[in-house]
Amino acid sequence: MYYTYMMMGGTDPDEALHASLFTELIQSYLLIHDDVMDQDDKRRGGATIHKIYEDVHKKKYGMQDPAHFGESMAVNLGDIACHYACQILTDSDFAPELKVRALSQLHRQIVTVGFGQMLDIVSSVKKEVTQDDVFKVHHYKTAVYTYETPISIGAVLAGASDEDVQILSGYAIPAGIAFQIQDDILGMYGQEEKLGKPNISDLREGKHTLLIIKALENGSKAQIHTVTQALGNPNVTQADADKVREIIAETGSLEYSKNTARDFVYKAKEALATMPDWNGEGRAFLDGIADYMINREF
Amino acid sequence: MYYTYMMMGGTDPDEALHASLFTELIQSYLLIHDDVMDQDDKRRGGATIHKIYEDVHKKKYGMQDPAHFGESMAVNLGDIACHYACQILTDSDFAPELKVRALSQLHRQIVTVGFGQMLDIVSSVKKEVTQDDVFKVHHYKTAVYTYETPISIGAVLAGASDEDVQILSGYAIPAGIAFQIQDDILGMYGQEEKLGKPNISDLREGKHTLLIIKALENGSKAQIHTVTQALGNPNVTQADADKVREIIAETGSLEYSKNTARDFVYKAKEALATMPDWNGEGRAFLDGIADYMINREF
Repeated sequence: MYYTYMMMGGTDPDEALHASLFTELIQSYLLIHDDVMDQDDKRRGGATIHKIYEDVHKKKYGMQDPAHFGESMAVNLGDIACHYACQILTDSDFAPELKVRALSQLHRQIVTVGFGQMLDIVSSVKKEVTQDDVFKVHHYKTAVYTYETPISIGAVLAGASDEDVQILSGYAIPAGIAFQIQDDILGMYGQEEKLGKPNISDLREGKHTLLIIKALENGSKAQIHTVTQALGNPNVTQADADKVREIIAETGSLEYSKNTARDFVYKAKEALATMPDWNGEGRAFLDGIADYMINREF
Repeated sequence: MYYTYMMMGGTDPDEALHASLFTELIQSYLLIHDDVMDQDDKRRGGATIHKIYEDVHKKKYGMQDPAHFGESMAVNLGDIACHYACQILTDSDFAPELKVRALSQLHRQIVTVGFGQMLDIVSSVKKEVTQDDVFKVHHYKTAVYTYETPISIGAVLAGASDEDVQILSGYAIPAGIAFQIQDDILGMYGQEEKLGKPNISDLREGKHTLLIIKALENGSKAQIHTVTQALGNPNVTQADADKVREIIAETGSLEYSKNTARDFVYKAKEALATMPDWNGEGRAFLDGIADYMINREF
């Protein structure tokens, strides 16, 4: 947010830095709810919020349903983070017209994220998931809140025109999709200590990533059977996961995912190149971020 | 919201009526999440959102965990309703300064509701709940979002001063507490067809209402035993509930709750009486609402 604010000619860097805290809280809100929905135990190397409260309940109250208590507290804490995030924007020092535009954009975007999340939940229980479904979830969910929201809100607060914000979205969406494809590759092949979460959890949760979809599409009968057995199996082992990793590589699915991520990064950089001559530093930053997407290890 | 807007000299009734839709969506958002946390099956005479989606899952997908699917969809739909609600305000035709003030107030209030909700969740698992705990939850949770939010936001959008909004809160909070005490009385003694939900669900959920707290405080050993056995018992029957209803009446707890509700209505009306001479109609409306709190049957 800060960089696009400066890039679009914003004049109050201190206030922009302060207001950019809202992106952190919006992300916390969405991740806390997401972890409840995905039933994830770990986040950023520690326990997830609902797990922390489940533990408090077990230690302190020790009756009824600790898991439900943990989930209730987490849903509620996510809601609180959401309203704190919005309040940072409403109470910032920017002109009221800019704040209203930024907030309107924020709410419209998070509604899109909500529909992306619904699609994601439905994809996790559907039997057939296509590449198109995967891209839609990556677009509506991850790319919007991780990329488009902070980037566009920084621009709006600097007073950028709707057309310029549109151009920035042309960068943000493909960059965000590339980020998520790489995230799924790391979720399968990354090192646990760098990821901060087990590298078999996507498999255990039965996540239909691009890696899995292409492996199922191109695999032999035996390979499909091995992948299907491991996918969504709560007792999946590292040995099972290693077999799936091999199949993903052998079927060309790993290479396909890497290439697809690279294509989306290329699209993002193309959008950047067509941009009017804004402040160079911000542009170099966005360029670097796009490359980092596919080179990062966590 | 509409009435306080007009009462405080608002000049665009059509826009106020349109913007007041936001209160309905904020309430939907909070109730959808609340029903997940309370594990309620019924709302307004129909199934709750998470129950509806649980049913969709059972009919359509029929594997994994339908209850978790239903809850995930409901949390997500609540989030979407929240952002739609905010968007109604950001995109309304009021002056940007008024919208920013209204939104800042909204977010601050809903953060308070969030803390009230946490207190409520903790109260539902704690063994000892006091009258003070109950009043705090009634204040922070129900009174704020059901009364203070719509009343104060209408006033802010009409351009009321902070002092006048403060006076309106002096009415809204006690009126809201009276509303919730009466709600708890109806939840125990009301007719199911009017309530739209079973009149034993508060008992089954183990809700520490003022009725229960005072009955436990003043009851004989045998009476306390009967109430404690029924409270939070998932298999509680109407016959058990009838015994508890008798005990609440015999210990004077029913009378105490009714009197307490009446005291809060009195406080609300007192605050109204000290108000400057605003538009008479809105004031008469608020006066009527306060009386209605303790005379309603559903």
